[in-house]
Amino acid sequence: MKTHRIGIIMNGVTGRMGRNQHYIRSILAIRKQGGVRISDSETIMPEPILVGRNENKLKELAAMGDGIAWSTDLDACLKDEKYTIYFDAQTTLRRAAAVKQAIAAGKHIYCEKPTAENSAEAIALAQAAEKKGVKNGAVQDKLWLPGLRKLRYLIDSGFFGEILSVRGEFGYWVFEGEHEPLQRPSWNYRKADGGGIIVDMLCHWRYVVDNLFGDITSLSCLGATHIGTRWDESGKPYTCDTDDAAYATFETEKGIICQFNSSWATRVNRDELFEMHVDGTNGSAVAGLRNVKIQHRGNTPRAVWNPDIESPVKYRDWWIPMPENETYDNAFKVQWELFLRHVVLGDPYRWTLREAAKGVQLAELGLESWKKRCWLDVPAL
Amino acid sequence: MKTHRIGIIMNGVTGRMGRNQHYIRSILAIRKQGGVRISDSETIMPEPILVGRNENKLKELAAMGDGIAWSTDLDACLKDEKYTIYFDAQTTLRRAAAVKQAIAAGKHIYCEKPTAENSAEAIALAQAAEKKGVKNGAVQDKLWLPGLRKLRYLIDSGFFGEILSVRGEFGYWVFEGEHEPLQRPSWNYRKADGGGIIVDMLCHWRYVVDNLFGDITSLSCLGATHIGTRWDESGKPYTCDTDDAAYATFETEKGIICQFNSSWATRVNRDELFEMHVDGTNGSAVAGLRNVKIQHRGNTPRAVWNPDIESPVKYRDWWIPMPENETYDNAFKVQWELFLRHVVLGDPYRWTLREAAKGVQLAELGLESWKKRCWLDVPAL
Amino acid sequence: MKTHRIGIIMNGVTGRMGRNQHYIRSILAIRKQGGVRISDSETIMPEPILVGRNENKLKELAAMGDGIAWSTDLDACLKDEKYTIYFDAQTTLRRAAAVKQAIAAGKHIYCEKPTAENSAEAIALAQAAEKKGVKNGAVQDKLWLPGLRKLRYLIDSGFFGEILSVRGEFGYWVFEGEHEPLQRPSWNYRKADGGGIIVDMLCHWRYVVDNLFGDITSLSCLGATHIGTRWDESGKPYTCDTDDAAYATFETEKGIICQFNSSWATRVNRDELFEMHVDGTNGSAVAGLRNVKIQHRGNTPRAVWNPDIESPVKYRDWWIPMPENETYDNAFKVQWELFLRHVVLGDPYRWTLREAAKGVQLAELGLESWKKRCWLDVPAL
Amino acid sequence: MKTHRIGIIMNGVTGRMGRNQHYIRSILAIRKQGGVRISDSETIMPEPILVGRNENKLKELAAMGDGIAWSTDLDACLKDEKYTIYFDAQTTLRRAAAVKQAIAAGKHIYCEKPTAENSAEAIALAQAAEKKGVKNGAVQDKLWLPGLRKLRYLIDSGFFGEILSVRGEFGYWVFEGEHEPLQRPSWNYRKADGGGIIVDMLCHWRYVVDNLFGDITSLSCLGATHIGTRWDESGKPYTCDTDDAAYATFETEKGIICQFNSSWATRVNRDELFEMHVDGTNGSAVAGLRNVKIQHRGNTPRAVWNPDIESPVKYRDWWIPMPENETYDNAFKVQWELFLRHVVLGDPYRWTLREAAKGVQLAELGLESWKKRCWLDVPAL
Repeated sequence: MKTHRIGIIMNGVTGRMGRNQHYIRSILAIRKQGGVRISDSETIMPEPILVGRNENKLKELAAMGDGIAWSTDLDACLKDEKYTIYFDAQTTLRRAAAVKQAIAAGKHIYCEKPTAENSAEAIALAQAAEKKGVKNGAVQDKLWLPGLRKLRYLIDSGFFGEILSVRGEFGYWVFEGEHEPLQRPSWNYRKADGGGIIVDMLCHWRYVVDNLFGDITSLSCLGATHIGTRWDESGKPYTCDTDDAAYATFETEKGIICQFNSSWATRVNRDELFEMHVDGTNGSAVAGLRNVKIQHRGNTPRAVWNPDIESPVKYRDWWIPMPENETYDNAFKVQWELFLRHVVLGDPYRWTLREAAKGVQLAELGLESWKKRCWLDVPAL
Repeated sequence: MKTHRIGIIMNGVTGRMGRNQHYIRSILAIRKQGGVRISDSETIMPEPILVGRNENKLKELAAMGDGIAWSTDLDACLKDEKYTIYFDAQTTLRRAAAVKQAIAAGKHIYCEKPTAENSAEAIALAQAAEKKGVKNGAVQDKLWLPGLRKLRYLIDSGFFGEILSVRGEFGYWVFEGEHEPLQRPSWNYRKADGGGIIVDMLCHWRYVVDNLFGDITSLSCLGATHIGTRWDESGKPYTCDTDDAAYATFETEKGIICQFNSSWATRVNRDELFEMHVDGTNGSAVAGLRNVKIQHRGNTPRAVWNPDIESPVKYRDWWIPMPENETYDNAFKVQWELFLRHVVLGDPYRWTLREAAKGVQLAELGLESWKKRCWLDVPAL
Repeated sequence: MKTHRIGIIMNGVTGRMGRNQHYIRSILAIRKQGGVRISDSETIMPEPILVGRNENKLKELAAMGDGIAWSTDLDACLKDEKYTIYFDAQTTLRRAAAVKQAIAAGKHIYCEKPTAENSAEAIALAQAAEKKGVKNGAVQDKLWLPGLRKLRYLIDSGFFGEILSVRGEFGYWVFEGEHEPLQRPSWNYRKADGGGIIVDMLCHWRYVVDNLFGDITSLSCLGATHIGTRWDESGKPYTCDTDDAAYATFETEKGIICQFNSSWATRVNRDELFEMHVDGTNGSAVAGLRNVKIQHRGNTPRAVWNPDIESPVKYRDWWIPMPENETYDNAFKVQWELFLRHVVLGDPYRWTLREAAKGVQLAELGLESWKKRCWLDVPAL
Repeated sequence: MKTHRIGIIMNGVTGRMGRNQHYIRSILAIRKQGGVRISDSETIMPEPILVGRNENKLKELAAMGDGIAWSTDLDACLKDEKYTIYFDAQTTLRRAAAVKQAIAAGKHIYCEKPTAENSAEAIALAQAAEKKGVKNGAVQDKLWLPGLRKLRYLIDSGFFGEILSVRGEFGYWVFEGEHEPLQRPSWNYRKADGGGIIVDMLCHWRYVVDNLFGDITSLSCLGATHIGTRWDESGKPYTCDTDDAAYATFETEKGIICQFNSSWATRVNRDELFEMHVDGTNGSAVAGLRNVKIQHRGNTPRAVWNPDIESPVKYRDWWIPMPENETYDNAFKVQWELFLRHVVLGDPYRWTLREAAKGVQLAELGLESWKKRCWLDVPAL
């Protein structure tokens, strides 16, 4: 059995996402399962070194696995040829500079989104990586969630006929923090700290829509600050000065209309926190993060408008769930495994820094559309 | 017992809406219940004369009640002083001319919506009626549907705290007519015949939003023709050249954002064919045509984003239906009774031809916004 | 309103089928509804004369409607020019002769199936009618049952993708008559009286399969007499000398395999007495006489063979019923209305005596296949 | 306590069936329970040696038990007198040669089915074993599945009266492998690799029918390739050139008709992946792999044909499940224990190589019947 050992500098794993999704549920999990098996006789084994500023936290994290290295000296790690991949899950404000440095050091790049604070910088990062010839990728985890994979299956197998439109609803009630603790960090609601739901979510809608329904060609977006005052982690009130809801509509190259609402100030009347309702000529689907239900033309009930009486049709009863035909691995881990194969075997990989830059671009255009109160075309990157 | 007998010229009751909602379920029903009781000693009794072109149909309709008059001579009816109200449910293309004639004859006016083919004409109608000093009203029936009355009650009693946003979803799958008969008239999908969902529905959204959430001050609207070919009543295919879906967002004077989708090409994943999801600081509601369910701050579950697992919270379980504390009469009949009181007693009545003109205006602005691809302000009428 | 009055000689309506399905539920029902409406200004009104040998029964039947004529003199009726259609629901043994006579008299022909005792005679009947130039039809009622119409809709709208195979199961337990009365006539189990399930049912399978899945090109059929002794209407035992079960397989011009079992000696483990299970590349359906349920590729569960444990998948739960989007009229009445339109308006009508002869042909080939123990091709008629 | 230690050469246990059913769930399970107890003072203890070509896999398997031997040298094992039984679960193509060698070495034989590629070879194997005087058996596991044992109980206790007919339905949807991985090996659909459902399943139907309903005397069989293209384990499309469905009818010496459909291209509208519907004069049963439900004459509802209305009888409600009166051990293990007793104690054992040859014979005749399009008699072996 041949083992490809791949050294990975993991920067920023002391944060929540970096720690849980990338370190524990992806890299440690891959190690525990014996690596990524690529044939009967070969595997890829990730060998991480955890990098950060807080020694105690790093030690604690390293102790979760067997023989996990750690360091507070990023420069030294970048010089070490043992490490061929640089991974970044720091806050957005610190990401671009570190990634640039790693590219210069010839490392392959894998990082969290958004890849930069603005699209110019994000494109510059992509170009730098391409010029240097290093392999690169950015997180687009939702594509591997069970619900989106089931939806992908419906699309690929022709369930919908022609897809006409998509309604996306994302959101939930984020408590204000006055009487009950908030369940998201307070900086999300401060512009200066990189907050705002448009910046946060439009990156996701870009790759979700591009991958499932065709490249977005234009958008209209309205932001709103529904909750003006929140209370921070220490219980102090502060003014929210950035959008906590976004009402956006996208058009794609295939002529599909995608109307997506995102809100941290809505109460959930859905089965899941994010759902897409897809209508096609031959069938429709409601896809959540994990579950999908469908209604084919053959069992579409005949609705007749008559508000004088209780509806004789129970519309919800005519949807049937999709079965759980596969076991779905953690979405972050799946993308990590694909990236490792890309690095070692050269397998195709479309979720690059350039793709990630498109997400940043869409967020920027969303803010601009809101300001100008009109539709904007999405230029090619 | 004093009885105010009010002669009403009913023009256009051979059509589906005029026949069922206005003649049978409103006027005949009021007659059957002994009129509109306005005090222990007084009632208003409507005395209709059915006007149209098809004698057979008129006779058949008249035979449904006791002593109902009918005529094919509108001019004669308008000259007859016995009749003080003129009601019009003809097709939109014929309405304005007939209403103008009735105003000239000094009749009070009550009519279906849209009141005219364009807002200029609709305003002209309103002005003519005001100038002549006749009382006037136009149908805004949805306001008296049980669901909207319950919602009104929630608003009036302060349930929501500050209302933040509203999502409206209207629509269902209108069969194309190829393999199964269509359930709406084929002209709905032909521009030249007055078709299009924007023209049809934005009139409604205007008075619904104005009355519940404050006057609409601006809008963005995107139309689409999702289904390009349909089969008409005789089974022949024809090209659909007007919008069958509209994705609109309204802002109101109160700063509430109302995002409303309307579609004849969507499969229903709702309890009712039209639902509004209203979010307020203290509570949220989902209001259908007949039923409303609510979730107060006090029973809002804490949502935490974790797509790695099945949601531990069953979000739908935390909504509780409003009780049926009243018996709700037919919405059209309720508005008729209010109009009759307005005519006889001078009771206040805000659902005038001028209000109806606002609906026509909004539909026009919706089409313009779609064309110009930008937000438009809604000027005062 | 113009009324086309069509005189119909109804021969054989004293039997169960003729009386219930043709006279009461078809012709009387059409008269009660005011005839067959063919436009806003025209209707077809059937004017039957009941013909038979038992005066009392005829009088009783005639009294069920207003002004229904009756006669025991068939010859006289055939000479009367008032009557332009001859209908026959006598026993099979008497049918061909009477129909021939009616053709000679220039009457249009409509009759029950089988149209004759053997295919040579059945074709001769068809040829005689065609030569004389009279319009003609034979009962193929099952095509208009709700279940088959829903199945037709699935086929026409492309639900199945490519249709692969069909399993038909028809039958139920016909009590032997010893301890409990039989629920079918005893002659069904006597060869000399025209009994046998192959003769009875293959006529049906022919037009069902031909119309839905393509013309039958070959068949294999095994008959069996499972119950050797039954007790007749008077309680006397008799020997059953003809088939009470048939195990047949058909191939169609489209390459679809249709495996159909028919039995009067099986206990029903189905929702309906006749069901077809249709498998296609993209979806499957189980269609009964009235109800249909479907399973699309998108919700096909992954079955894995493991008899060591209880199945973790509840296979039946993944089927969803088709909605009742239409009101389905009596199947016999629907075909009668189509035949009346065919006679009066010349509307296309494919369910002719020639088609009926194909049913008789298939039954004959079924018996031959059983005898020869091999597949037989079905020659064109 | 006397222990009979029986050395068993297990060849081919690295495959799925050999590993799971024979090694883990049978031999290891028997060892874990302390052997096969044959009296208060005696047990039989199987002592396996795992034989194969892949050392790593053999080591891994051996490590699952205590002191399990393994070897890559079959010849040496056959010479070793410690081992008295030779077991074979290799692919069919390699089986006969190895079994012959083992017979020559004087080993008792136990092996998977089909025992050879054709019936001539299968009979030759049986004859060789009989001539040599070694005990022999072949897998006929389904006979010991709970469902079939319950059915056996009904037959033995006279529940059915005279059994008239049996309908067998086996199958499920094997995914094509394009959008979702296939759940059976791709070679099943390639003729050259020994694929085809007739070859796979008719072996089973032979012993199931022979044991339960009497020896099969004749058959008619139609094969079909419903799905022409599938995608293999590496995701590449290939042409399917052998049957994936079989429509067969058997007659038995008792005159019972057994109509059995087998398909890998059907969606399951059953409770289990294989079900037999058995009709007898006094009662009927539906037997799955594990569960059986019955309907006795005493609770057979009276079905009356009337497609004009919804069936007033819920036919499925009149079946009642058989209770779980016993705990059913793994079917493979049960047959292993019977074979070990046969070897050690000389207990009767009817599931020999000769019986297995009958299964191969039936598959051959099935293919021939399909080709010749006629019924074939089944000659005695």
